[in-house]
Amino acid sequence: MPQSAIRPIEWVDGEVVILDQTLLPHGEESVRCTRVAEVAEAICSLRVRGAPLIGIAAAYGLALAARGDEASVMGRVTRAADLLRATRPTARNLFWAIDRMVSRAEAGATADELLREARAIHEEDAETCRAIGDHGAPLIPQGATVLVICNAGSLATGGIGTSLAIIRAAHRSGKSVSVLACETRPLLQGARLTMWELMRDGIPATLITDGMAGTCMARGMVDLVIAGADRIARNGDTANKIGTYSLAVLARHHGLPFYIAAPMSTVDLSLADGSAIPIEERGPEEVRSFSGSPSAPADAPVFNPAFDVTPTELVAGIVTERGVMTAPYEKSLPA
Amino acid sequence: MPQSAIRPIEWVDGEVVILDQTLLPHGEESVRCTRVAEVAEAICSLRVRGAPLIGIAAAYGLALAARGDEASVMGRVTRAADLLRATRPTARNLFWAIDRMVSRAEAGATADELLREARAIHEEDAETCRAIGDHGAPLIPQGATVLVICNAGSLATGGIGTSLAIIRAAHRSGKSVSVLACETRPLLQGARLTMWELMRDGIPATLITDGMAGTCMARGMVDLVIAGADRIARNGDTANKIGTYSLAVLARHHGLPFYIAAPMSTVDLSLADGSAIPIEERGPEEVRSFSGSPSAPADAPVFNPAFDVTPTELVAGIVTERGVMTAPYEKSLPA
Repeated sequence: MPQSAIRPIEWVDGEVVILDQTLLPHGEESVRCTRVAEVAEAICSLRVRGAPLIGIAAAYGLALAARGDEASVMGRVTRAADLLRATRPTARNLFWAIDRMVSRAEAGATADELLREARAIHEEDAETCRAIGDHGAPLIPQGATVLVICNAGSLATGGIGTSLAIIRAAHRSGKSVSVLACETRPLLQGARLTMWELMRDGIPATLITDGMAGTCMARGMVDLVIAGADRIARNGDTANKIGTYSLAVLARHHGLPFYIAAPMSTVDLSLADGSAIPIEERGPEEVRSFSGSPSAPADAPVFNPAFDVTPTELVAGIVTERGVMTAPYEKSLPA
Repeated sequence: MPQSAIRPIEWVDGEVVILDQTLLPHGEESVRCTRVAEVAEAICSLRVRGAPLIGIAAAYGLALAARGDEASVMGRVTRAADLLRATRPTARNLFWAIDRMVSRAEAGATADELLREARAIHEEDAETCRAIGDHGAPLIPQGATVLVICNAGSLATGGIGTSLAIIRAAHRSGKSVSVLACETRPLLQGARLTMWELMRDGIPATLITDGMAGTCMARGMVDLVIAGADRIARNGDTANKIGTYSLAVLARHHGLPFYIAAPMSTVDLSLADGSAIPIEERGPEEVRSFSGSPSAPADAPVFNPAFDVTPTELVAGIVTERGVMTAPYEKSLPA
């Protein structure tokens, strides 16, 4: 089945149709949102997730909110933007997309024009993914195995992904490439989503638990690591799914390159370094259980940060739609 | 509740009563073994687990097999030993206990004498745990947080554990000590067993997923790491639960000491280094599912090594019943 068949979000007849990723890979069901509050709930509950994709979801949510009396578009968009900004704190793309939509509304855009803007954000992200893939593919040597974490694929973006775009581009160019996918506890996006995507595409992939990454590197089973990103500071410090930092330290210990792949909309030009990136902490039940099955004493104290920050020193390069940036990253960024 | 209430294995009225650890912490049920094949099944299926404890289980299994016609004890013990040796390849203590029982049988021990030998192995391990705790407790600074993996506690030994013995001894001495417990996928011994033990003892403990260890170290939440062991080579290379090696690399990166705690029966004097330690690979279903719930595509390829090897360079010291050994370890070992 072609990977383009994966459509994690669509605008259909005035509704935002979101593939419910919490049910994958065993259920493929969508939720149809007719109100922005439903979109916000889908973002909070991770029915839709992945930094670029939640930006797209927020844009469609604002397009939903804009519909109605044209005289009060701005008021509805402002309230909806406040609601959406409060859903998840870490992914920069969410705020980037909301800001872009709000600034169009401030410039007097109609509801129809705001829908066109949301569609443009969606379509531009698909193009961005293709460009990330094309720029990053040369980083993968012939016959290499790439270690990945979480899901930075079609289910995280409006296109073919970020880290998975690079793997897909290398695969399509005829290179032999295989993947080791960390399952990515607590919500298992690697096991549930990345394995599902790669198996659909026929790209060889093997699933491991997060604790196996080190021994796989020591055994020579890994050639490079490519991770996505939720927010990148000006100096290259990068917030991404919890566990990414450990992979970067392990890669350094084993002399393996560790790359980040993300659209420019993930870069937060306001942050000099990663110390001010807000790190979302989620509820204890995610760690005490999976999919309804308890895995720990019911009252076990839990620490559950959803993201960690990898310092720029451990990053070999950042692949964006503009090319492969290397340190010092500030030189590649707008002032 | 006093920790001594945890009895993972007992010989009761001619039966080996094994607490079924696969059901913990939500179910506390025992299996009663009347034949050695049932003990072997309990070891294979991890109803009884932990390197010292499976040695004790094997000893009781051989005591079971010995019962019957006194003229043919040796034949039954030999066949039972073959069965038990084939259960799990990595833990040295299993083979150590079997060898000790077989050599008693070869010396003409009766079934009653073999039962006394099994009980002695059990009781000596309890004493060994106490000694490990006493030797190791000074390694924990006042107010420290210890990161642990898997379960190296009462559920893994005949006593108060190995790494958990050290934490318990520090706690009992009045030191303020807290624990960060890695959940330890795939089988979640950290979440299910270590959290259960520590919460019973009233020792402050917080559960994290395995991928969170790095960020916890970077945030200054960890003072030292203490892991158990399944097999230790003469040079100090140590096989332990998968994920241990990653913790050792992370500890080194953050300048934190990484200790091993284990009885001398875990040391394999026949191995110069860890390269020849057999590493058990287990079935894919352990990784494709989580606590009974499927967590990946049903046909996802999986790599599932149950252990990894931490090289001696990353080990700050090995705590045994004899004291704290440091490199070069060969000097502390019998020739």
